[in-house]
Amino acid sequence: MNLIERRKQVLGRHVTTFYDDPFAPVRGDGVWLYDADGKRYLDCYNNVPHVGHCHPKVVKAIADQAATLNVHTRYVHEGVVAYGEKLASKFKHDLSTMIMVNSGSEANDIALRMAQAVSGNTGVIGTDNTYHGNTASVSQLNATKVPVGGYADHVRQVPSPDNLHPVGGTRAGQAQAFAAGVEVAIAELQAAGHGVSALIICPYFANEGFPTLERGFMDQAIACVRRAGGLIIADEVQPGFGRIGSHWWGHEKLGFVPDIVTLGKPMANGHPVAAVITRHDVLEAFQDAFKYFNTFGGNPVSAAAAMATMNVIEDESLVENACVVGAYALKELSSLADKHELLADVRGSGLFFGAELVCDGKPATDICLKVVNEMRRNGVLLSTVGRFENALKVRPPCVFSKENVDQLVDVMDHAIAQVLADE
Amino acid sequence: MNLIERRKQVLGRHVTTFYDDPFAPVRGDGVWLYDADGKRYLDCYNNVPHVGHCHPKVVKAIADQAATLNVHTRYVHEGVVAYGEKLASKFKHDLSTMIMVNSGSEANDIALRMAQAVSGNTGVIGTDNTYHGNTASVSQLNATKVPVGGYADHVRQVPSPDNLHPVGGTRAGQAQAFAAGVEVAIAELQAAGHGVSALIICPYFANEGFPTLERGFMDQAIACVRRAGGLIIADEVQPGFGRIGSHWWGHEKLGFVPDIVTLGKPMANGHPVAAVITRHDVLEAFQDAFKYFNTFGGNPVSAAAAMATMNVIEDESLVENACVVGAYALKELSSLADKHELLADVRGSGLFFGAELVCDGKPATDICLKVVNEMRRNGVLLSTVGRFENALKVRPPCVFSKENVDQLVDVMDHAIAQVLADE
Repeated sequence: MNLIERRKQVLGRHVTTFYDDPFAPVRGDGVWLYDADGKRYLDCYNNVPHVGHCHPKVVKAIADQAATLNVHTRYVHEGVVAYGEKLASKFKHDLSTMIMVNSGSEANDIALRMAQAVSGNTGVIGTDNTYHGNTASVSQLNATKVPVGGYADHVRQVPSPDNLHPVGGTRAGQAQAFAAGVEVAIAELQAAGHGVSALIICPYFANEGFPTLERGFMDQAIACVRRAGGLIIADEVQPGFGRIGSHWWGHEKLGFVPDIVTLGKPMANGHPVAAVITRHDVLEAFQDAFKYFNTFGGNPVSAAAAMATMNVIEDESLVENACVVGAYALKELSSLADKHELLADVRGSGLFFGAELVCDGKPATDICLKVVNEMRRNGVLLSTVGRFENALKVRPPCVFSKENVDQLVDVMDHAIAQVLADE
Repeated sequence: MNLIERRKQVLGRHVTTFYDDPFAPVRGDGVWLYDADGKRYLDCYNNVPHVGHCHPKVVKAIADQAATLNVHTRYVHEGVVAYGEKLASKFKHDLSTMIMVNSGSEANDIALRMAQAVSGNTGVIGTDNTYHGNTASVSQLNATKVPVGGYADHVRQVPSPDNLHPVGGTRAGQAQAFAAGVEVAIAELQAAGHGVSALIICPYFANEGFPTLERGFMDQAIACVRRAGGLIIADEVQPGFGRIGSHWWGHEKLGFVPDIVTLGKPMANGHPVAAVITRHDVLEAFQDAFKYFNTFGGNPVSAAAAMATMNVIEDESLVENACVVGAYALKELSSLADKHELLADVRGSGLFFGAELVCDGKPATDICLKVVNEMRRNGVLLSTVGRFENALKVRPPCVFSKENVDQLVDVMDHAIAQVLADE
């Protein structure tokens, strides 16, 4: 039985793979993934290996600490404390305390309860095209089919911002229209007796298709939530740790002050680590209201992996790299858009960018998928995103170079030509 | 600022430590933990480092794979498939499929939804002194204070079995009385319109104080649940992987057939790994009803860590060791109980055992805590468990030897004498 069949037997047939021809990497190094035949692929997709696949300094930190000690946080250990201090130094607004966990899902699961503990309410507002994780609680925010027992009554989804289909009809009026959606949700939650505990958003609206938003976009919506007694949760799992180039965190770019920040995927370059960052008063309210302990969370190996990742980001100036290389990529993609009408909107920030494909005024969902598969055949890995899955999503390890951009754009150019010729 | 104060600043003052004098290990090796002064402590408590602290084969597996490749399961990789096959080979009853996650909490969070998907119901039954994890969903099973929004109406807690205070009053009638409690819960859940999705139990009733139960204890209760359309979830996070000596899994010891098994803590010797094991039909029902993907779950490094741990358990015959050394420990502890009337009940299986402390016919909770702290001062680490926290809990790495037992019992003997003399 081949590996694909064995995989179906063990993991179930619903565990999807990317690409028509599933990709089976056996080795990773920097921005490169290699298959069993030694063919190398440019990884333009994976944000988890934030400082590059198998970065030797992160590997060494994990190996050394795993050989020394691995216990939980009911013992006292320098590692988790030193990392917490280091991480907190990257935040303003009294966001100085941390709970370290094992996944972004666990982090958001806590964040929702923190907001409950502080507000005394249970209602939650998110966008209508979001994803915040996979626990029973958090997955209620992105339920796409009716869960057993019905949709959660304490959750309201508001229309998410979009470049080509802005909320309220115009880009200029989008912030106000978004806030109006939040106001409606607040009124509904209050009428249903839930009240408002939190607005939870990715401050880059990554799953929504990373629309281009001006600084201050969130201000009106946030004011509404605060007036209703709710907290603001910034899910920085995707934009965080400098990926967006201009800032360390998405909420800094949009210029708002969250009460709670959640972190995940790139935090330890692939080691299962995530965290919640908040103020002292929020942490204490949570710890008073809920008993919480996490066996693996904050263990010395996870802390060492996260600290090594943080140090590499600083030592190799990866935020600056994301800024410079991301700007170059946007310029090159814009030139490509001049050539291919299909690329209707090029957008992004730092090393999180892409292009939305439109054909005859309609989302080119099928063509987008074909382009992704054609690029995979030509050694470049990326994927799709957005409400209609018609945008090419580029979100590579942050060691991505201008040379890598040139390869990406070149292969995209040929793939688009090939796919359009085949139509 | 010293480490304890810095820890409070970053993690909050509610993050508890064991012992009056918090323990700060800096190095681990086998059954030993070392503090900064080089003093060594016999670890009689930590079940996570299942094959011994910092086992070189597990460390090497992690280091080698972290240096080679770490991606998620939307790519195809031999590691997670091979581990799933290996793990499934340890189960009967068609328990042949796996979802790998990052914590026992994530595993139980999935298990509850699996039961919902199959049964179409939402009601859950657990015991009244249990713990199944820390997500918002799972922590409803062990809520000790009223959560924001009130106790979950779909959860019912039934009286848990106990050696000194058996359900229904007698040890002989305990299985029937336990089943009667489950019947009441079923009737309540049905009357409330939730129906029954699952009975979730630790098949060793570890947090309940690991009472001595005969094979077949669960049969009547399980029959009631199945008649009501519910599934049986065996939370093997604590008893699993051979700790109990007589069997690989707690449900084998009690002789019942679960629909879903959850695993965690010891699975990869401290690397954040956990899993859900179930039948194909249950997995498919879950995947049909809920969209689920876990970024870190089943990554090649986690799979390698779990595989190495599994191999060490087999290569070093650690299940057999747990059986032999555990039997020796029970014998020695029983002898100690002949000397100290305080040790009212000695019980356990394999390397999960302990003694319940009773004084003047009452749970000796304070004395128990003093004994634990006195033992810590004398280089032996353990903790307390049970409804009244009056039992000494011993649950060491499974490389624990008879010589280690002798040290444990000797230090316990002196600690009890010292504490009683101080009273």
